[in-house]
Amino acid sequence: MKRIAIDMDDVIANPLSKHLALFNKTYNENITIQDLEGKYLTEIRPNLKEEIMNIYTEPTFFRDLDVIEGSQEVIKELSQHYEIFIVTAAMEIPPSFTSKYEWLKDHFNFLNERNFVFCGDKSIIKADYLIDDNSRHFKRFDGQGILFTNPYNIYETGYFRVDNWQEVKDYFLK
Amino acid sequence: MKRIAIDMDDVIANPLSKHLALFNKTYNENITIQDLEGKYLTEIRPNLKEEIMNIYTEPTFFRDLDVIEGSQEVIKELSQHYEIFIVTAAMEIPPSFTSKYEWLKDHFNFLNERNFVFCGDKSIIKADYLIDDNSRHFKRFDGQGILFTNPYNIYETGYFRVDNWQEVKDYFLK
Repeated sequence: MKRIAIDMDDVIANPLSKHLALFNKTYNENITIQDLEGKYLTEIRPNLKEEIMNIYTEPTFFRDLDVIEGSQEVIKELSQHYEIFIVTAAMEIPPSFTSKYEWLKDHFNFLNERNFVFCGDKSIIKADYLIDDNSRHFKRFDGQGILFTNPYNIYETGYFRVDNWQEVKDYFLK
Repeated sequence: MKRIAIDMDDVIANPLSKHLALFNKTYNENITIQDLEGKYLTEIRPNLKEEIMNIYTEPTFFRDLDVIEGSQEVIKELSQHYEIFIVTAAMEIPPSFTSKYEWLKDHFNFLNERNFVFCGDKSIIKADYLIDDNSRHFKRFDGQGILFTNPYNIYETGYFRVDNWQEVKDYFLK
């Protein structure tokens, strides 16, 4: 059985909308998702870099994120044919550990928690495929990297790309 | 640079002594480390299985464990010649996440936290070597498994075995 490793943030969970809403509210800004096309919020407001990152370190930030549309249904179906691991770079934000675990148990309870991985450098991952919105994780990955479209990676080329979970389903199950 | 993945509990951290002391104190027992040769505490006291496991779920249990003798010095030296990852099956005990992370930052602060991995099924790990006291993790591991001796694995055969960190050093650096 081949193995698919799947990133969490901006692939199955949606921190982007919540983060942007909190930022706009706190700093009285009106930055939109469209403004983030091709760049990170820290590039748009470099003077607020620390404040922007601190929003993520609030221990419950990751607890109530929306599920990315289609991810539950498609992963459930994929799990009949592939070994599924959820792989998140949680070591970058240690206060997120518990919230991320509980969120996964809530929304992906058909997966065994033994298949959850909290890491930093994803080159440690052995899998046939890695679905991720951050192409840096493909550099030392042996398998097939699959770039999941998000505003900030929209202009990146050189990677196999999917725009949504329907396209993931088509790729693996057609 | 070749990569060594290193387990945490009973390889670099010592939960065994603390766990046994807490168990003996709570249940007025006198079980010794020697009594655990070839078996787990849950096999000696099967009627207390749940209570035995619950000791591990106290959130600070893993925070103040002793460091296994020689592990810091040898891993520091190994890290000059090999890529080192610390890989622990923390998903089995989610309340341990924060304590394990803080313990690693305290005692192995020469390693980058991007090289810490909290997982469950270690078959997800891509490394050339895995040093672990639990041989079940070698079954689907592609690289060289190295069994780190502990009372309960003392009678296991069929694996390359090291008894202490001096032997690890000799194996990799001689």
